[in-house]
Amino acid sequence: MFYPGGLKRKYQTTVQYGNRGMTLEEDINETNTFYLTHDRGVIYKKPTPLTITKVDYPSRKEAVVKEAYFKTPSTTDYNGIYKGRYIDFDAKESKSTTSFPIRNIHPHQIDHLKAVIHHGGIAFLIVRFTTLDETYYLKAEDLFDFMKCSTRKSIPISYFREQATKIQNRIHPRIDYLKVIDELYF
Amino acid sequence: MFYPGGLKRKYQTTVQYGNRGMTLEEDINETNTFYLTHDRGVIYKKPTPLTITKVDYPSRKEAVVKEAYFKTPSTTDYNGIYKGRYIDFDAKESKSTTSFPIRNIHPHQIDHLKAVIHHGGIAFLIVRFTTLDETYYLKAEDLFDFMKCSTRKSIPISYFREQATKIQNRIHPRIDYLKVIDELYF
Repeated sequence: MFYPGGLKRKYQTTVQYGNRGMTLEEDINETNTFYLTHDRGVIYKKPTPLTITKVDYPSRKEAVVKEAYFKTPSTTDYNGIYKGRYIDFDAKESKSTTSFPIRNIHPHQIDHLKAVIHHGGIAFLIVRFTTLDETYYLKAEDLFDFMKCSTRKSIPISYFREQATKIQNRIHPRIDYLKVIDELYF
Repeated sequence: MFYPGGLKRKYQTTVQYGNRGMTLEEDINETNTFYLTHDRGVIYKKPTPLTITKVDYPSRKEAVVKEAYFKTPSTTDYNGIYKGRYIDFDAKESKSTTSFPIRNIHPHQIDHLKAVIHHGGIAFLIVRFTTLDETYYLKAEDLFDFMKCSTRKSIPISYFREQATKIQNRIHPRIDYLKVIDELYF
């Protein structure tokens, strides 16, 4: 598209309307930074697990990884502490407008969430239907119940709308999931 | 060294006496696996944080990291849940036989441990004097007190022997730090 003066308005590509263009991971990272700086809780995303197979040392102080492979994570991506409680969760995005495929959650992530619940932690999923721009807090216990009671391989959006808690997009913090934890546990 | 028949007893190199040859990290990882399989707690080491700058895709399913740089960690290496409590710690080795240099702990790791205590978690260091083969559980609160009350840049071994809790090397688990937590908190 051309504009007066023949200038292409390149910066258009970075203009954001509401939440569009931000990934769920970016939203959660900004939220966690907000929680940390406002002294509400200490929650971090774990680094991506890699198997490092080659490292170069161009200088004594520097090290550069020259070959590494992505590993399947054995746990969820996020954990931390809030009001003395251990919290643990994963974040998943889906483009579907009808349901969330359970295969998006690795079997060892399910095992991990079960172990967390068993030891007294707060475990959940944050699921965003990107096309609908709807984000939900789903208790891990509800996920397990669904998997036990249903043979369906995906959780319909209606289940989220009825059973899960919707998280509204905000400015600061973007995804206020601790508010949901307050309502559910405190 | 040569043995009857001219055979070099190569396998000697892997024989271990007590704990020699195992790093503290390996000992803690084995301990955490023991805790997990015996249903005592869910504690993991976080992956090494890397900034990935180049990724190759030799096939549709495979991805190989071709360039990445080590990042200074903003948190500690280990966290998890035990008896409903959030626990958080780092592990440090020192070859010194007289003291543990405080500069071994990054300033943001100190800040992180303070935030964890502030929010009600259990925070500590596992410090091993490798030459002496002595391993200690040091409460984060005691570390902060030492730093407040002393101008010394390292903590003498005598402080550990009097104030910290010694963790004996064992077979299973190798570093039974949850036993210390039981004594201190439960």
